[in-house]
Amino acid sequence: MQRTLIIDTVKNIDNIVRVAGWVNTRRDHGKIIFIDLRDRSGLLQVVCSPDLIKDVKEESALEVVGVVKKRPLNTVNKEVTTGEVELQAQKVRVLAQAAAIPFDFMEKDLNLNLPTLLDWRPLTIRNPQVKTVLKVGEAIAETFRKTLQEFDFTEFQSPNIVPAVAEGGADVFHIDYYKYDAYLAQSPQIYKQIMLGAFERVFTITHVYRAEPSITTRHLSEFTSLDAEMAFIDSWQDLMDTVEIIIKNMFANLKTLGVKAPEFGKEIPRIKMREAQQIIFERTKQDHRQEPDLSPEDEQEICLWAKEKYGSELVFVTHYPTLKRPFYTLADPEDPDYTLSFDLLCRGLEIVTGGQRINDYNKLVQNIKKWGNKMEAFNFYLQAFKYGMPPEGGFAFGLERIVKQVLGLKNVREAAPFPRDMERIDTQLKKSRKK
Amino acid sequence: MQRTLIIDTVKNIDNIVRVAGWVNTRRDHGKIIFIDLRDRSGLLQVVCSPDLIKDVKEESALEVVGVVKKRPLNTVNKEVTTGEVELQAQKVRVLAQAAAIPFDFMEKDLNLNLPTLLDWRPLTIRNPQVKTVLKVGEAIAETFRKTLQEFDFTEFQSPNIVPAVAEGGADVFHIDYYKYDAYLAQSPQIYKQIMLGAFERVFTITHVYRAEPSITTRHLSEFTSLDAEMAFIDSWQDLMDTVEIIIKNMFANLKTLGVKAPEFGKEIPRIKMREAQQIIFERTKQDHRQEPDLSPEDEQEICLWAKEKYGSELVFVTHYPTLKRPFYTLADPEDPDYTLSFDLLCRGLEIVTGGQRINDYNKLVQNIKKWGNKMEAFNFYLQAFKYGMPPEGGFAFGLERIVKQVLGLKNVREAAPFPRDMERIDTQLKKSRKK
Repeated sequence: MQRTLIIDTVKNIDNIVRVAGWVNTRRDHGKIIFIDLRDRSGLLQVVCSPDLIKDVKEESALEVVGVVKKRPLNTVNKEVTTGEVELQAQKVRVLAQAAAIPFDFMEKDLNLNLPTLLDWRPLTIRNPQVKTVLKVGEAIAETFRKTLQEFDFTEFQSPNIVPAVAEGGADVFHIDYYKYDAYLAQSPQIYKQIMLGAFERVFTITHVYRAEPSITTRHLSEFTSLDAEMAFIDSWQDLMDTVEIIIKNMFANLKTLGVKAPEFGKEIPRIKMREAQQIIFERTKQDHRQEPDLSPEDEQEICLWAKEKYGSELVFVTHYPTLKRPFYTLADPEDPDYTLSFDLLCRGLEIVTGGQRINDYNKLVQNIKKWGNKMEAFNFYLQAFKYGMPPEGGFAFGLERIVKQVLGLKNVREAAPFPRDMERIDTQLKKSRKK
Repeated sequence: MQRTLIIDTVKNIDNIVRVAGWVNTRRDHGKIIFIDLRDRSGLLQVVCSPDLIKDVKEESALEVVGVVKKRPLNTVNKEVTTGEVELQAQKVRVLAQAAAIPFDFMEKDLNLNLPTLLDWRPLTIRNPQVKTVLKVGEAIAETFRKTLQEFDFTEFQSPNIVPAVAEGGADVFHIDYYKYDAYLAQSPQIYKQIMLGAFERVFTITHVYRAEPSITTRHLSEFTSLDAEMAFIDSWQDLMDTVEIIIKNMFANLKTLGVKAPEFGKEIPRIKMREAQQIIFERTKQDHRQEPDLSPEDEQEICLWAKEKYGSELVFVTHYPTLKRPFYTLADPEDPDYTLSFDLLCRGLEIVTGGQRINDYNKLVQNIKKWGNKMEAFNFYLQAFKYGMPPEGGFAFGLERIVKQVLGLKNVREAAPFPRDMERIDTQLKKSRKK
């Protein structure tokens, strides 16, 4: 007999079906036992005689053959999709016994401290709220992909092992690569730019690595970057327009998961960093107008402003200072101390960064030197520009950060199935280096 | 004026359009210059007066405004989609000048040696044949995704940084992880198994790492693994059935890219490893019947046999010896020296590996010890099994290997945009470790 998904039992009233799933709850009423069985599609009440499931504990995996029956009206459970039916068990097969669970990780408002949530990750991912968090992450990445595919972008696999010569900051992870030095990629930047020469429009969904030296609620050592790059742009505003379309699609899709997305009006406001600092000064009397970047507090304040003024929980901040952005960022021809770059802030946190790049070979060579980089490290990259690179730019979405902001999570670690930081890889790190 | 893609010029006869692309070829005829302009959609003949494009070299990026004209019948080029039209240029803007190209990397039958193909990767990816290779890779990954989405699989991001304790073989890459030891993941195996507890059916498209100590035509240090795992299976044959559906969809989609996929009949033959060895012995008189695995030559021979006997360029080889497979592989209850595992071979090379896993907690604990692993390394993983794991199994497709076999490439390196091996990360590695 084919397995019937729980959600389909309502279409099988008075039929014999075979279902399979986990024991979500078990209630013993003497001569009768009620099991709420859980599969990927939902929950189903199963009515059993005690001899069928003697010592079966919660979270055990079962297969049940039985008859689907309509419940009497007064016992209908309106909270679940299958609340109008129940399964009268005839045969039960235990697929896997579960040990006594260590704590109730299926509770609706799972309010565990973060270490417990992560120490018991193989169990806490079974919680419906945690599952929704992971499903939201899946939906956001998939919407990014589908939107860009509609615009004729090509997906590619960007490598994560990068050469010794190209990196070197304190926040990169070193790899013993045979008898050489290599590093974990901090971004797919140079690869997506190179790929433009073949495909004009490219994207990659890839992992990137930052050896963050401190624990914050918004940083991970390994995170998922949704990275896109497009050539033949007419203006750097094309990039923000594309980001806005992606955001709109992402938020529309969240509705199907029952998630209320952040609000913004017809379009997301765009404001220069220096204007943002002036507004923050006027609102808070904190004078950050000479600072080369927004602080986390500044980002929160300018988001409050955008909410009050435009009813928008998102705001683009543009024109970051040239010397504070990477060497490849294009300076504004009308004001070369500032770049044609942007961050998208959502509810107080940066979730996207992007900008137009320098496509002129000679200017790139000049900047590589000016930024104090070794030319030899960029010969490979520069090939793409020496032989004809049109005006181009791109952007990167931080997947776990978007999930955090959209769902109002306290910590970005909750948004990754298996988050890594300076103290944890699955379990707490305890032993220091052997080498 | 909006940019018109080259493929759409045929719908714009006698209209003024703006196109943009790269100079694919340039032919000077004195008072007239013919440019073949290339964008992501195709090639277009542009007719220019010399003053408009004086010193523009091949691979320069241009924007051209002009009138689309139908060509006289005797000059129609049937080899390109836009061969019935040409653009009479009125205005040309050079978006980026190209230096003189070092060699003709746009040649139709690009027959470079591998080092040259890779040393000049930012240029050789512009070649139409190379682009097709990368497009085939994109299509194969996307077909894997779409097929599994139809079967209700959840996609997740599997981490690539894994704990020191879980690995340790000679072929793993070590990472300096803050003050701890960590490694690059060799597979997402334990994470996809853990995720089953939440979603029943999961997949991930992820990079995996092998510190291969030798250079072969079929190994990369970093490659893309298409990994899936499914719970509540009725039989391990379900896994091969699912692989077969994915393969059929992949091969069907290749047709849309003009690629002739490998052939097989209605279904892919399935044969036990020991039977394969017997057949090889009878065919070649080479006696490998006591060997615990097939050699590369054996894989080629059994594929020849499948082609001759079944007209199939694919064959499943099953029942590999228990002691040669990982500790989590389920032994055949009818013959416990062999496992319910399989490899899928295509044209002489393994492209998929999979099998049913042990879902019983006690048996897993027993095997972890028997295989000589430290229990403490598996406490996190074992949580998923201690609290109810139904019968399950999974498989992994090697993306670059499939591309290699499907297109008949000589070397798997050609199938990755930026392949890594013991001698190369973008450029040839020359300096050994500084530390």
